[in-house]
Amino acid sequence: MSEAIYSLIDQLGELDTNLHTQDFLLTWEQSEANLKATLLVAELLEELYLANIDTRVFTSGLAVSIFRDNSTRTRFSFASAASALGLSVMDLDETKSQIAHGETVRETANMISFLTQVIGIRDDMFLGEGHEYMAEVSKSVRQGHAEGVLPQRPAIINLQCDRDHPTQTMADLMHLQKTFGSLEALRGKKIAMTWAFSPSYGKPLSVPQGIVGLMTRLGMDVSLAYPEGYGIMPEIEDIARRQASASGGSFEVTGSMAEAFDGADIVYPKSWAPYDVMQRRTEYLRGGQNDQLATLETECLARNDQYRNWECTEELMAQTRDGKALYMHCLPADITGVSCEQGEVAASVFDRYRTATYHEAKHKPYVIAAMTLLNRFEQADRVLRQVVERGTPRQLVG
Amino acid sequence: MSEAIYSLIDQLGELDTNLHTQDFLLTWEQSEANLKATLLVAELLEELYLANIDTRVFTSGLAVSIFRDNSTRTRFSFASAASALGLSVMDLDETKSQIAHGETVRETANMISFLTQVIGIRDDMFLGEGHEYMAEVSKSVRQGHAEGVLPQRPAIINLQCDRDHPTQTMADLMHLQKTFGSLEALRGKKIAMTWAFSPSYGKPLSVPQGIVGLMTRLGMDVSLAYPEGYGIMPEIEDIARRQASASGGSFEVTGSMAEAFDGADIVYPKSWAPYDVMQRRTEYLRGGQNDQLATLETECLARNDQYRNWECTEELMAQTRDGKALYMHCLPADITGVSCEQGEVAASVFDRYRTATYHEAKHKPYVIAAMTLLNRFEQADRVLRQVVERGTPRQLVG
Amino acid sequence: MSEAIYSLIDQLGELDTNLHTQDFLLTWEQSEANLKATLLVAELLEELYLANIDTRVFTSGLAVSIFRDNSTRTRFSFASAASALGLSVMDLDETKSQIAHGETVRETANMISFLTQVIGIRDDMFLGEGHEYMAEVSKSVRQGHAEGVLPQRPAIINLQCDRDHPTQTMADLMHLQKTFGSLEALRGKKIAMTWAFSPSYGKPLSVPQGIVGLMTRLGMDVSLAYPEGYGIMPEIEDIARRQASASGGSFEVTGSMAEAFDGADIVYPKSWAPYDVMQRRTEYLRGGQNDQLATLETECLARNDQYRNWECTEELMAQTRDGKALYMHCLPADITGVSCEQGEVAASVFDRYRTATYHEAKHKPYVIAAMTLLNRFEQADRVLRQVVERGTPRQLVG
Repeated sequence: MSEAIYSLIDQLGELDTNLHTQDFLLTWEQSEANLKATLLVAELLEELYLANIDTRVFTSGLAVSIFRDNSTRTRFSFASAASALGLSVMDLDETKSQIAHGETVRETANMISFLTQVIGIRDDMFLGEGHEYMAEVSKSVRQGHAEGVLPQRPAIINLQCDRDHPTQTMADLMHLQKTFGSLEALRGKKIAMTWAFSPSYGKPLSVPQGIVGLMTRLGMDVSLAYPEGYGIMPEIEDIARRQASASGGSFEVTGSMAEAFDGADIVYPKSWAPYDVMQRRTEYLRGGQNDQLATLETECLARNDQYRNWECTEELMAQTRDGKALYMHCLPADITGVSCEQGEVAASVFDRYRTATYHEAKHKPYVIAAMTLLNRFEQADRVLRQVVERGTPRQLVG
Repeated sequence: MSEAIYSLIDQLGELDTNLHTQDFLLTWEQSEANLKATLLVAELLEELYLANIDTRVFTSGLAVSIFRDNSTRTRFSFASAASALGLSVMDLDETKSQIAHGETVRETANMISFLTQVIGIRDDMFLGEGHEYMAEVSKSVRQGHAEGVLPQRPAIINLQCDRDHPTQTMADLMHLQKTFGSLEALRGKKIAMTWAFSPSYGKPLSVPQGIVGLMTRLGMDVSLAYPEGYGIMPEIEDIARRQASASGGSFEVTGSMAEAFDGADIVYPKSWAPYDVMQRRTEYLRGGQNDQLATLETECLARNDQYRNWECTEELMAQTRDGKALYMHCLPADITGVSCEQGEVAASVFDRYRTATYHEAKHKPYVIAAMTLLNRFEQADRVLRQVVERGTPRQLVG
Repeated sequence: MSEAIYSLIDQLGELDTNLHTQDFLLTWEQSEANLKATLLVAELLEELYLANIDTRVFTSGLAVSIFRDNSTRTRFSFASAASALGLSVMDLDETKSQIAHGETVRETANMISFLTQVIGIRDDMFLGEGHEYMAEVSKSVRQGHAEGVLPQRPAIINLQCDRDHPTQTMADLMHLQKTFGSLEALRGKKIAMTWAFSPSYGKPLSVPQGIVGLMTRLGMDVSLAYPEGYGIMPEIEDIARRQASASGGSFEVTGSMAEAFDGADIVYPKSWAPYDVMQRRTEYLRGGQNDQLATLETECLARNDQYRNWECTEELMAQTRDGKALYMHCLPADITGVSCEQGEVAASVFDRYRTATYHEAKHKPYVIAAMTLLNRFEQADRVLRQVVERGTPRQLVG
C-alpha cells in the first residue's frame, strides 16, 4: 500500500478526538479534531476502495435505517456505507411497523439494536422534532447498553434532521477540500449560500443551516442570502456568527442574491421553505388540519412567486470571482427548462457543473462509513492499519 | 476460547436430536432433546457473539421472510439471525408479489428457494390457517428437494402462527433459565399466564398457547387465567394438561387473575382475543363481511370492558412469591397511563421490570439462528466446533 | 475440484467474447460467443454451488434492482445472484423515490451507483419504453464512469423489457441444453412458441419475442403460432427470420396451435396481449385515460374469449413428436381448473411437467450471476479459476 495511505493513518492517530460512542448529530457540537478525523477516515475509505482493498471491519451485524421522508441518494449512500463496513441493511419502515415519539422510542430503539452497529435516521419533516427524536434514540441505546441489554451501543447518525444535514455538508466539505487542494486553502474563500426559486414549497432548512453551521468554522467568508421572510432558524444564524468570529472568517446575511454572488469562490443556490411556514406546517400537520395545509401551500407558492428572479443565471455567475465560482448543489436541482419551467438554476450553468455536482455527491457513502467507524472503534487508526495490512482485495482481479 | 464454550458443545453432541431437515413449527411436536439442543445452540451463539467470534456458517445464500402481519421485533430478530449465520434477507412482500393458500404455494415456495437456507413465516391472522400454511410450505420444499429442484431444503421457521409462537417462547424459556439458573431450577416453580385488559381487540392467541404448551414440559406449575369466554384453543389446553402430568408439573385453568398470581414465581399478563371471536373474525375476513367485522369489534371491545380490572397492579404483584415474581411480556405492553389510558400493567410494575423484559427479548435472534443451524446441519456440534476453532473476530479490535 | 469444472473454464477461455463493460439487454445484439460464454459461466456457477464452493468475487458492494412491475421469481433470482457474487441488494422503489424517464435518469443512475456493481431492471409495462429506459441508464453510467464519478461501471441487466426477457430465455436455453444433452443437439429440433388462452389480459410480449429471438439462432425449427391479431412486434419477427436463415434453422408463423404442435419436440404455450392492444394501452396509460383503459380491457377480454380453445390439452400434446414434447413455461401458468376456470394448459399436462418447469426456472439465478460476472471482469475464466483454486466451502460441513 502507498505511503500516502499510511500518512493519512498517522495523521488520524495524532488527532485528539472523542467520537468513540458519541453520536454525530450536529456538526457544531463536534470539535475541530472530530471533523478532521471524519474527513480523514472518509478519505482513507475512499482511497482504499479505489485501491481495491476490502474495508470491512465487521463480519456480520445490522445497519438500521429509519427514513421518515422519501430519499434516494441518502438511502443508497447509507446502504453503500453499510456494505463497505460489512453490515447488512434493515429498514425500519414505519408503514410496516410502529416507531413513535414518546415512550415507545426507548423500547423500539432497543428491540432493533441487539446485533446493530449503526442506526441512520432521516427525520426532517417537522420543525423541532427530527433532532429531538435522534437524541432520544441516542439516549435509549446508551441506556440499553449500560444495562447490558445491548452488547454494543450502535452509532446514531443524522441522515438529515430539522436542524442539520451533516452527512451532506461533510461530503460537501470533502468536495471543497479536493477542489481547492486542502482545508487550509478554504481560508478566506467566499461561499454564497443563497435561497433560489423553486416551483415547489416546503423544502427543508437543513442544507442551508448545515452549510452556514459548518463552513463558518473553516475561516471562510460565508454569505447567506434570502428574500425577506425566508430566514433560517435564528439560533443557527447565531452559531454561524460566533463560529465565523472564532475561526477568523466572516458571516453576513443579505437580502440580495447578487450581493452574495459578488466575488464568490463558491455558490450554493437552493430553495428552502421560510422558517415561519415550516412552523405553521408542523402545527397543521400535527393537528391534521388539511384545509389550513392547502391554504398554506397556496399562500406559500404565491409568496415564492414574487422571487422568481432568484435564479442562478449566467449573469449572476459572471459576477463571481473571475466568473468561475464553483457551483454546488445537494441534488436534485430544479433546472430551468429541464426539470421545471423555471427553477433554481439556468440549464447552461447546471450543464457546466453537472459532473462537479456528481463528484460532490460521491463522497457521502464514505462520510457515513467514517462516522460509523469512528463511533464504533476507540482507535480507528489502529483498525484502519489492520485493514491495510490485511490487504484483502475488494474484488478478484481478472 | 473458554472451557465453558467447549463444555456446551460437548453437551450438544451428547443429545439425541432429530432436528436436521425437520421444521420447527410447534414446540409440542419437538422432543425434549430437540428443545434442549435449541437452547444450547442459542446460548452458544450468544456467547460467541459476546466473545467477538464470527459465527457465520454460510458464505452466501438467502434467508427469506414472509410476514403476513406487521412486525418490528420479529423482523429484526430474523434479520439479525440471518446476518449472524452469513445469509442475506429477502422479504416476500405480498403487496409486491403473490403467495396464496392453495395450489400456488408449492410453486412459489420452490421459486424463492433455489439458494435459500431458511424461510421464516409469520402468519397469525386467521385461525386454522397459519400453521396449515407453514406445513404446506414445508411439504413443498421437501418435495422440491427430493426432486432435485432445490439443492438444499430450506428450514421453515414459525415466526408466529395461529397456534404457537416458538421463537418467542423459547427466548422466554432462555430468559427463565438465565434468571433462575438452570432448566432444572424451574421445576416446581409457578408461572401465571394470565389474560389482561387492553383497549385493543383481536390480539393473537399464540403467546398464551405457546407458553402453556412449552412451560408444562419443564415440571412447572402452570396456571392459565382468563375471564369467562376468553379460552384458548381447547386442544392446546389438552396438550398442556398431558404434558404437565408427564413432566411432574401441573396445569390449572382459572377464572381469577388473583388466584393465578397467588404465590407465583413468574407472571405473564397479556391480552388476547377470545377464541370464538377469532373464529368469527376469520370467517368475516374471509367473506369480506366488513359490516359484521365492525359489529364484532364493537361487541368485543364492550366485552373486554367488563374486565378492566384484569390489570397487573402492585396489589396483585404483592400476592406473588415474596411479592417478587418475575414479570414477563413479549412486548410491546399496554402500560396504564403510558401507552394507553388503561392497559395490561401498571406503570410502576412495568418500570421495575422494563430492563428485564428487554433482556427477555434479546435472546430471540439467537433462538432463530439456532433453529436454522440445527435444521441445516446434521452435526451442529461439529459445525460449532469449527466456528470456535476458526476463531475469526466478529469485528476488528481497535 | 473435478476435471469437468476445469474443462468448462478452459472452454470459456477460448471464446472470443466482448461482454466486459457491455450490457446484456437483448440476446440478438450478442454474438454467439457471448451467448455461449453466458451459458458456460452460468453452468460453472451452478456446478460450484452444488460442489459447496463459495463463488463470491466481491467482498462488498451493491446490486441494485429496479422493478417497475410486480415480480417474485425474478426478484428472488436477482437477490440470489447478488448473494452468490458477494453483493448486497438495494431496491430502488419508485414509490419511495423518484426515477423517471427523461433528464433525471442520468442523475439517478449515477447517484445509486457509487459502490454498485450491477443494476437489474424490469420495465415491461409500456411498449417502446422499457428498452429505451435501460439503454439510457446504460449510457448514463458509462458517462459517469468515463468522467471519474463512478469508480466502476455497473453492469445493466435486462430483467424483462418490452422487447426481450434474456434472463428468462437464457435460463430456458440452459434447460433445453441439459434436457437434450447439448446446444448442438437442439439443431433441427422443432419448438412451438404458441399463444394460449388466459382469463387475464395485457401480459407482456417479452417471452414469445425473446424465445423466437433466441431459439432461431440455434438451428432450431421455430414455429410461432397465434390467433389473428395477436402478432408480436414485426421487427422481432424479422430478426427471427433472418437468424433462422443464418443458423440453418427455420422460422414460421402460423395461425394454428395444432400446426405448431405437430411433430414438435418442445412446446411453449403462453398467453400474451396483442401488439396493437399494448400500443393503445401504452397510449391510454400515458394519458391517464381511465375510461378508455376500461373499455380496452373489456374489448380485449372479449377478443380473448374467441380463442378459448387455444389450450395446451392432452389431445394437442399427443400430436407432438412421439406425444412426448417437452412442455415449457416461464411460470406461473394459468392451469385449467386449478388456478383459473379455463387457462393456458390442462391440469394433467401441467402435472406431468410441473417438476420440469421448476427445473427450467432454477437456472435463472446463475444466468443473472453469469451476466454480471462477464460484464464486470475482463477475464472471467481467470476469475473463476481463482474461485476454484481458493476452494472456500460455501457452507461449513457438519
